[in-house]
Amino acid sequence: MSAMGEFDLIARYFARPAKRSPLGTGDDCALLAPAPGMQLAVSTDMLVEGRHFLSTVDPARLGHKALAVNLSDLAACGAKPLAFTLALSLPAVDEGWLEGFSRGLFALADAHDCELVGGDTTRGPLNICITVFGEVPAGSALLRSGARAGDDLWVSGTLGDARLALEVFRGTLELPSELFALARARMEMPDPRVALGQALRGIASAAADVSDGLLGDLSHILRASGVGAVVDADAAAGCIAACAHPAFDRGVLGDELQRLYALSGGDDYELVFTAPVTAREAVAQAGRASATAVTRIGRIEADAGVRIVDAARVPVEQRFTSFDHFV
Amino acid sequence: MSAMGEFDLIARYFARPAKRSPLGTGDDCALLAPAPGMQLAVSTDMLVEGRHFLSTVDPARLGHKALAVNLSDLAACGAKPLAFTLALSLPAVDEGWLEGFSRGLFALADAHDCELVGGDTTRGPLNICITVFGEVPAGSALLRSGARAGDDLWVSGTLGDARLALEVFRGTLELPSELFALARARMEMPDPRVALGQALRGIASAAADVSDGLLGDLSHILRASGVGAVVDADAAAGCIAACAHPAFDRGVLGDELQRLYALSGGDDYELVFTAPVTAREAVAQAGRASATAVTRIGRIEADAGVRIVDAARVPVEQRFTSFDHFV
Repeated sequence: MSAMGEFDLIARYFARPAKRSPLGTGDDCALLAPAPGMQLAVSTDMLVEGRHFLSTVDPARLGHKALAVNLSDLAACGAKPLAFTLALSLPAVDEGWLEGFSRGLFALADAHDCELVGGDTTRGPLNICITVFGEVPAGSALLRSGARAGDDLWVSGTLGDARLALEVFRGTLELPSELFALARARMEMPDPRVALGQALRGIASAAADVSDGLLGDLSHILRASGVGAVVDADAAAGCIAACAHPAFDRGVLGDELQRLYALSGGDDYELVFTAPVTAREAVAQAGRASATAVTRIGRIEADAGVRIVDAARVPVEQRFTSFDHFV
Repeated sequence: MSAMGEFDLIARYFARPAKRSPLGTGDDCALLAPAPGMQLAVSTDMLVEGRHFLSTVDPARLGHKALAVNLSDLAACGAKPLAFTLALSLPAVDEGWLEGFSRGLFALADAHDCELVGGDTTRGPLNICITVFGEVPAGSALLRSGARAGDDLWVSGTLGDARLALEVFRGTLELPSELFALARARMEMPDPRVALGQALRGIASAAADVSDGLLGDLSHILRASGVGAVVDADAAAGCIAACAHPAFDRGVLGDELQRLYALSGGDDYELVFTAPVTAREAVAQAGRASATAVTRIGRIEADAGVRIVDAARVPVEQRFTSFDHFV
């Protein structure tokens, strides 16, 4: 079979009947038409082996994650997923891998009613590039630039678990198997906060997704909004699911590392967002409506920069750097 | 400088003031709003070193080509370019390379008023993934499925020159330097037929872009339309610019290879399209209006399959396979 033939075969794993696109995945372009009054939100992410995922990862989980990290960008804008394109470079045709990858990818796509409308497959080092499309009513997208002094600072879901799993893989940490499974699922199967993002439209004043670590992604909001923040490191550390589990042995991970992994662990795919104090009940309601935990972890201030404190409001002297993926 | 810092630096080569997107390249998503009555045409292409380009290519030419192959897909649909996203994986930060690549990329983008609205940069084997967006009036996109028996078969511009250049690089062919420069420019700086594609709306019955070789891409039209074709191999061979040049020595490339390179050379980024016989003057006018040569190279027939003939209508017994890129 020629190289072209092999890669035609790959494409077959991703061919499904078209729904949203008038042309499906066959023509040179897919055609999309956002509903009247809607803007199209677009984001693209490229995943490279060894940097964004370990070579040992289950292909179904990788298929899930490749789309999840893109859906997380739509969530941060409050957009509803519509469609995506997939460009895939593979060193060789491995049908078992393709079956698993496409199964994980489509399971998440179907859960969000997000249709594959086009793509490209080629031979080369493993590389997955997805571009995702969502729609949002014109003028109501969540932006990074709307945070105001006095706003509360919130985060969704859990923080730091993906980093705990990575540290176990790296051999710097040991966890009981049930906690490792929990942390590993957060690393390999992130749950993009799509429903919460949409529920926060009109409530949150600014939002970003947490991919490179909470402090790093918060800094994008602060810069775009021209403000600063006080962050309660212990409130953030309380968001680590594995550490809150009864089976967790506090001896294996001190307070300092818990704060570090919560604030700059990375790979969380949660939302960090701000909202006026008067919107506390509305934020809580958005969390309930989307079955997503929301935790208040600080406050926006006029002074630029981030001031990290503990639960007693005492400044924490610790260096928090942004997540460096696997290098 | 940390890896994150380096890749922030890369992103700076691609940061420009936003025009079309309300958010520019900063937020988690770019926002696009097609004009009322317009559909959005979307296509994605991934370029891998050694497969889609040689490692020795000038980075400015690579920047041009990476966008050109995507614009060519828009051209095949008759869409007007609007915007694109760029995901880029690089083994290391090379500022000279980035300067050249971004210069070539933006020169072509500006020529087509196509704005970079988002992207992603990461460390990894060299990989360029562009997703391009265009707009087309609802219902008037050129499709692959509209070819009808009796239609003329047309091709734009020149064919086979990219393959001649590749064969010179491979050492299987020698050309005088002025012809090599001409062929190499067609290989490295393809000119996407964006204006012609738009001019053919309402005239062409079907269209595709020629990336994998004329016969391979024609087969997509034939399959989607449920028809076959007779192709005049000598008319196609007449489209090789280098071979039509006065400095070309007919001794270095016989008729058979000229036909082969024209019909399945690949990397042409021309349009292959069909149109009713009654539209011949309209097609010629579309070519003049877009300053693009158009050549009639055959006819659509009801019988499936492709029948290749020479200028005297005698069947040509030759094996034409699809372009295999560089592997």
